[in-house]
Amino acid sequence: LTKGVVAATLTPMRADESPDLALLSDHCQKLRGDGCTSIVVLGTTGEANSFAVAERQHILEGLIDAAIKPDDLIVGTGCCAQGDTVALTRHALSVGVSRVLMLPPFYYKKVSEAGLFRAFAGAIEGVGDDRLRLYLYLIPQMSGIEIDVGLIERLLDAYPKTIAGLKDSSGNWPATQVLCRRLGARMDVLVGTETLLLRALEAGASGCVSATANVNAAAIAELFSQSDEPRAHELEKRVNAKRSVFEKYPMIPALKAYLAATTRKPDWRNMRPPLEQLTAAEVERLMYEIKPT
Amino acid sequence: LTKGVVAATLTPMRADESPDLALLSDHCQKLRGDGCTSIVVLGTTGEANSFAVAERQHILEGLIDAAIKPDDLIVGTGCCAQGDTVALTRHALSVGVSRVLMLPPFYYKKVSEAGLFRAFAGAIEGVGDDRLRLYLYLIPQMSGIEIDVGLIERLLDAYPKTIAGLKDSSGNWPATQVLCRRLGARMDVLVGTETLLLRALEAGASGCVSATANVNAAAIAELFSQSDEPRAHELEKRVNAKRSVFEKYPMIPALKAYLAATTRKPDWRNMRPPLEQLTAAEVERLMYEIKPT
Repeated sequence: LTKGVVAATLTPMRADESPDLALLSDHCQKLRGDGCTSIVVLGTTGEANSFAVAERQHILEGLIDAAIKPDDLIVGTGCCAQGDTVALTRHALSVGVSRVLMLPPFYYKKVSEAGLFRAFAGAIEGVGDDRLRLYLYLIPQMSGIEIDVGLIERLLDAYPKTIAGLKDSSGNWPATQVLCRRLGARMDVLVGTETLLLRALEAGASGCVSATANVNAAAIAELFSQSDEPRAHELEKRVNAKRSVFEKYPMIPALKAYLAATTRKPDWRNMRPPLEQLTAAEVERLMYEIKPT
Repeated sequence: LTKGVVAATLTPMRADESPDLALLSDHCQKLRGDGCTSIVVLGTTGEANSFAVAERQHILEGLIDAAIKPDDLIVGTGCCAQGDTVALTRHALSVGVSRVLMLPPFYYKKVSEAGLFRAFAGAIEGVGDDRLRLYLYLIPQMSGIEIDVGLIERLLDAYPKTIAGLKDSSGNWPATQVLCRRLGARMDVLVGTETLLLRALEAGASGCVSATANVNAAAIAELFSQSDEPRAHELEKRVNAKRSVFEKYPMIPALKAYLAATTRKPDWRNMRPPLEQLTAAEVERLMYEIKPT
């Protein structure tokens, strides 16, 4: 269902922090043109949780209206309140998008596996639509929630058609490797960074979801499709070097600053609180560090 | 503005997880009758973030319609999306409730102090109402966000009339003591547990916000107002013993199970995912452990 390099798109916004849908759809077209097979809209990189439910629906509709194909999109829909998760997921299906990336409810911490099962099962039953293809969103450094392989297998057993895959942004390779090996044959395992792409593919993953694809899509897509091993490892080095610069900064502000500078569209720098723009000095340093790669 | 023992009320719900407003308002009346000076509605204990914005507004309206005085309430309004926080805060003011307990946006982690300042300032400016009395909600074990004293002082300097206090649920006494001493004269410092009440009052706090007040309000209120020192320490021991039993379990499920058992209203046990009811064996053990106190 989902293979290759998936870009986790940023959400451009105007100075008043309203989403700039024209700029977003142009950006998504470019990401597709650069070789990304799908685009995650309103994930962590897209500041999803900084938008209210109605705003999120408006953003998705904007993309569909701009002739982005629904089948090219994966939409983030997981909220703390199950009603919101169900509403966003139903809305996605209503505009033709069947793939959603679903966070667990992320306010309460140290919750039980039974509670998380009930949360995902409740959302699936609440949506009640056979077309749904659900990707579980594992990002403990933001959600504070661990979703372990036993829970994923229980969900797969209960909803084999609906549970289509997962995105693992833990950045913890040994854990990711276990997910690839145990689940790669049953679902799309997507790693949350291109730096693990080659290793993950070898272990059974289908691809990666990448934030840095916003600024490096073509090279990452080439890395995925490169069959010549020495050439792939050379590409991997270059791709990793570029990512490592962005990782020195808060990722979203750094990506937005880079796009503002390279596209000469200063609005790219805008973002919603609690995120903050890089300082002018940080931007200068970032652009200097990027150059050599 | 806020002194004494504040109960952080649970939100009772039916088997279908819809809020039971009649049971909630009866419970709030009882908490007031037992000596709680105010009631936090839709805080962590009230499963606030498990309800959508419209549901939260409906719950608050239900209490007002049941003749709970708006001045007796403090309403939780902090969400990840600033638009939701502003909408809930404006709604509270529109029904006469001026005191709100505001979480920082809690999805992104490791955010800067500047970003958090911008989030709270943006919410205050977005509400734009002089009647607002804002209590900052410090609960890093759930929100994943640290709000340090420097940020609070910056907010107090910028919005001296609006920033009315804070609730500190960190459970970290040395840090709480610093907050009481540095801020107690400028704002209402409320500690998040009655176990720290006496110490906190001595250090400059105004009172406590307590989850266990749902099941032990009268004793905790007596602890607050007890001027005889030996008697106060005796009461503190009893109150702490009762709380320590609940702390052996997930707090919200345990409080709900206890109320279901003692009021013979089994609906008290219902809660929304990702929280899970205690098992029958756990309930039995809880009730056995509570008895001796």
